[in-house]
Amino acid sequence: MSVVLDAIEIKKSGGALDAATIEAVVKGYLTGDIPDYQMAALLMAIRWRGMTYEETLALTVAMANSGTRYSFPDSVDKHSTGGVGDKVTLTALPLVAACGAPVAKLSGRGLGITGGTIDKLEAIPGFNVHLSEDQFRRQVEQVGMVIAEAGELAPADKAIYALRDTTGTVDSLPLIGSSIVSKKVATGAGYLLYDVKAGSGAFMKTAAEARELAELLVRLSESMGIRSSALVTDMDTPLGRAVGNALEVRESVAFLRGEETSPDLAEVARDVAVRLLQLHGASDAEQTVADALESGAGYDKFADVVRAQGGDAEALADLPVSPNVREVTAAETGYVASFDALGIARASLALGAGREKKEDAIDPGAGVEVMVSIGESVDQGQPVALLYGTRNIDRAADFVRQALVVSGDRVTPSPHVLDTL
Amino acid sequence: MSVVLDAIEIKKSGGALDAATIEAVVKGYLTGDIPDYQMAALLMAIRWRGMTYEETLALTVAMANSGTRYSFPDSVDKHSTGGVGDKVTLTALPLVAACGAPVAKLSGRGLGITGGTIDKLEAIPGFNVHLSEDQFRRQVEQVGMVIAEAGELAPADKAIYALRDTTGTVDSLPLIGSSIVSKKVATGAGYLLYDVKAGSGAFMKTAAEARELAELLVRLSESMGIRSSALVTDMDTPLGRAVGNALEVRESVAFLRGEETSPDLAEVARDVAVRLLQLHGASDAEQTVADALESGAGYDKFADVVRAQGGDAEALADLPVSPNVREVTAAETGYVASFDALGIARASLALGAGREKKEDAIDPGAGVEVMVSIGESVDQGQPVALLYGTRNIDRAADFVRQALVVSGDRVTPSPHVLDTL
Repeated sequence: MSVVLDAIEIKKSGGALDAATIEAVVKGYLTGDIPDYQMAALLMAIRWRGMTYEETLALTVAMANSGTRYSFPDSVDKHSTGGVGDKVTLTALPLVAACGAPVAKLSGRGLGITGGTIDKLEAIPGFNVHLSEDQFRRQVEQVGMVIAEAGELAPADKAIYALRDTTGTVDSLPLIGSSIVSKKVATGAGYLLYDVKAGSGAFMKTAAEARELAELLVRLSESMGIRSSALVTDMDTPLGRAVGNALEVRESVAFLRGEETSPDLAEVARDVAVRLLQLHGASDAEQTVADALESGAGYDKFADVVRAQGGDAEALADLPVSPNVREVTAAETGYVASFDALGIARASLALGAGREKKEDAIDPGAGVEVMVSIGESVDQGQPVALLYGTRNIDRAADFVRQALVVSGDRVTPSPHVLDTL
Repeated sequence: MSVVLDAIEIKKSGGALDAATIEAVVKGYLTGDIPDYQMAALLMAIRWRGMTYEETLALTVAMANSGTRYSFPDSVDKHSTGGVGDKVTLTALPLVAACGAPVAKLSGRGLGITGGTIDKLEAIPGFNVHLSEDQFRRQVEQVGMVIAEAGELAPADKAIYALRDTTGTVDSLPLIGSSIVSKKVATGAGYLLYDVKAGSGAFMKTAAEARELAELLVRLSESMGIRSSALVTDMDTPLGRAVGNALEVRESVAFLRGEETSPDLAEVARDVAVRLLQLHGASDAEQTVADALESGAGYDKFADVVRAQGGDAEALADLPVSPNVREVTAAETGYVASFDALGIARASLALGAGREKKEDAIDPGAGVEVMVSIGESVDQGQPVALLYGTRNIDRAADFVRQALVVSGDRVTPSPHVLDTL
């Protein structure tokens, strides 16, 4: 019997796979010795029976070791499980770097409703996301921060994820956890903060589910020698006001420059920066972060990164967005009870800010700007959002209108950081 | 979302698929629109959650309708779930045909430890198992019995079974049941007896599991308009004395000619024949079968079939087997407590009577002849089996020696028909 058929039988009967078997399966799948259909059956058996912590760790190790592994033991990194208007990387990390902790960050592109930091950075004219390992390493040393597109990190994870995505086996906690951590291990940062999103615009719908994932991510990372902690943050509404690539960079820059910004973004960005610095060993992280914001050092660091990667730092303050703008207005008078992240994400996707399929071309200037926050009062006919872009405007407007829930009763906004580990 | 991804989600969450979805999935898999890996994931989800009776019936219908469907509403057929030395088709069906019930039988080849009727018939010089639909139909009318190789019946079942076989999804009662009945429905006989084997040499290890499958087979068949019943018969030891193609034909012929034969084969062959005739409406089936045995009418019918299909009926009485014969002897004195069917099957396979892989060439004259029955006393050094053939003789002898369990205490043989429905 082949190793994968043995593994299927063991999982089917509720048993646990040993590390050698897991490594053999991961290697065999990557070489093509194990065909997709056997891997799919094994993944569904794992979805059914779950995995012990030891199995999950072994899978993480096997996937992390399937490609190049970088090593930046003094650097910090953060990982978000993906949300709508999630600009924490663009805001918290420059603050962290400005406070002296080196940032070595590899990011991805957006797919479906989830945005990607690389797409956002490419909205900056000239910004180069493709760096060699040498360039990447040199920039960490010279600038103290770098963000580039992740290449062939953990190729086994990439292959297995693509299969999971088409076989109904995404929604498995051990598979989600090992997938995330395998890539972070390959990235090689020594300090890691997880920002696990919970809500309609996130994969985890409840804070309890998100906390369970956060605990697994931290435990796996610590087992791999990475100092880690996690936040659970709200994704029922978009983070901040902007959703879309150039729009989000513009909002991030405004925050870093100390301009007026939405309190939820400020809260999460500051929390992430403080906790990363604490992980890294800073003694007075809160004050240090406040100073970096106050002095504009965070913004300066971001501008340094943009310049180092060939981007036009002068364009940052007023990044071009789509000149084609449509207002969406409130249908009734009352208090904003909800402005559903998933609906706004769909609107932004329809406008061309994201891609349905990997090959789709995006419009960097497209997106949605939300003009009201939870708890605010609105009048019928008052503008509540601006749509940027030229594609599917009517459909996008419908999504936004359906996303807005107005209540006759007063509404108290809930905190944006839901839980901390 | 595609129909198969929807189906996977429904099964994962413990729901039931409607008949239209099942039909679409079966069609999509057969056309290649649904890739192997998605079907494998769905099959594992079905292995996990099971299927309702309605789902199982819908799958049976969809697979039965995926290719040609014959119609022989007045004919009888039997189906064995596969065993070792299982010569019920060769013995019971000529008796049934001799008693006036037409037999339209499509059979398969052996694989692994399970023998196939088609391989056995090909041990008869000249016997042609490849008949056109016209030839097949004409022979039912003119001879009253035909056995040919099943062609493209239920091609969806064939494709799905091949996938199950390599993805750990064979052991699912609804998948087993629908697979068997879909082929029988396509064969089109109006009366059907299932012989479900239980024991070490069968897929179902216990009589309880076998009964569960038997109930499902009868229920599905009746839902499809086929008058059906079932026997559960023992497969802890081989049925009769011979295992191997020519050896089994020789033993079957000896039984039909009224020569001395093992009581278990006689019991099962008679029971199957009687029950099939009863299903078909015979009033005094037991006496009719006894008469057909007594008069040799069963043997005459078998010889007619052999002649009609181009075989040498004169060779039947003394069919050539391998001249290379090795005796295996008892290692101790006592009573035969067990002569394990699985071990004897492995010996026969090693000798070349079966095939490990579809492409393997078989030796029609190879096999094992068992010389002792459960409960018989044996002396150390007494011959207990004969091995026929030239391949792997030492290994085969080891298998047979390990299969024999001799006890110091007296042993009472259990009945061969374990249960009836």
